[in-house]
Amino acid sequence: MADRLVPHFQDELEQLKTRLLEMGGLAEDRVRSAVEGLVERDTALVDRVLGGDVPINQLHIEIDSRCFKLLALHQPMAVDLRAIVSAVKINTDLERVGDLAINIAEAVRRYLRHAPVKELIDIPRMADIAQAMLRDSLDSYVRQDIALAQQVLNEDDELDALKTQVFRDLLTIMLQDPSTIEPALDLILISRHLERIGDHATNIAEDVIFLVSARDVRHHAGEVGAS
Amino acid sequence: MADRLVPHFQDELEQLKTRLLEMGGLAEDRVRSAVEGLVERDTALVDRVLGGDVPINQLHIEIDSRCFKLLALHQPMAVDLRAIVSAVKINTDLERVGDLAINIAEAVRRYLRHAPVKELIDIPRMADIAQAMLRDSLDSYVRQDIALAQQVLNEDDELDALKTQVFRDLLTIMLQDPSTIEPALDLILISRHLERIGDHATNIAEDVIFLVSARDVRHHAGEVGAS
Repeated sequence: MADRLVPHFQDELEQLKTRLLEMGGLAEDRVRSAVEGLVERDTALVDRVLGGDVPINQLHIEIDSRCFKLLALHQPMAVDLRAIVSAVKINTDLERVGDLAINIAEAVRRYLRHAPVKELIDIPRMADIAQAMLRDSLDSYVRQDIALAQQVLNEDDELDALKTQVFRDLLTIMLQDPSTIEPALDLILISRHLERIGDHATNIAEDVIFLVSARDVRHHAGEVGAS
Repeated sequence: MADRLVPHFQDELEQLKTRLLEMGGLAEDRVRSAVEGLVERDTALVDRVLGGDVPINQLHIEIDSRCFKLLALHQPMAVDLRAIVSAVKINTDLERVGDLAINIAEAVRRYLRHAPVKELIDIPRMADIAQAMLRDSLDSYVRQDIALAQQVLNEDDELDALKTQVFRDLLTIMLQDPSTIEPALDLILISRHLERIGDHATNIAEDVIFLVSARDVRHHAGEVGAS
């Protein structure tokens, strides 16, 4: 009826998905730069992360506004409705990932004022996993791919295990040499920020499973006998 | 037209708000119990927090489902549409606060295995502020009270300052006595979890300002000259 007056819903939805992928790419780049700044001890790179959150914040507002317009103009139902509401949530998750890139960069900036505490192996590995999870979760949204979303949920366990490993290693180092306490604390914080990026990817993956199957996997709601 | 077939939108919206307040109350109780467990060294209380997230998780799923039904059945516009989408976001924030109560309880459980590191003054104070911010942010949503939402945004600065203070105090203690490193780390983590509860209250308050005024205060989008 109003189809000729308002742009076609599916075209608008495709544009929304493209913008979400773009935002995910920006967030991922910022996390990568912050961790590369840590590994390479490159303060200029870290400072670029600290000063460069305008594009991602602008996209956050634009995507939110696109979602509201789609809801108001097209009044979508069923899977389309879930796709838009998921986009609102994913947008929030990606904005938080952008904030976490800033938090990582702040910790890196402090860390680089000290001598290196240890060789960095697990933290770059955590960053790689978190970025892959983020990318896969967004791909699973765009392609409505439940198997890929499920894979993201599984990868989160590896990230958690690495976080625990990083914590134990750094605790040992701090106990042996208290002069490392301050920089070691920042490495612990960085590992927790990376873990939280994985948590956001997990949120996105759970949204995708709900979106596609209308099955709620959060809090094990879909498990038999779970309460 | 369909008004006699579907329950009245405003009644349903009121019920949704009541459920959000209920969920906020549950989340707040859990944070209070976790911190009371810390101060009173009451492991039984902490264990109750660790084992008791079923009601809040059930409410999370119920509220999400209410939001979808309201969007699908009533196809609300303007401020009503923003109220429902805000409810989806607030629901997510409250669920994360519930998760943070668990994270705090886990850190308290570990902390209580050690002798006390210091007298606890700033952390209970942080918990009080975070809980008040949460309560005020939800009240501002229910009453659509922009002034109250603005107050929440201001309180966040106090929470940040306390977090920095806690960190400095504990760093000094750890440097003086490395045997305190492990429990002190948990106090630092607890203070950061409390700060994040304040961040969630801030998110809610920003949503309320957008909901009522359709003005986006996130990323200073409403400021003249801001980019």
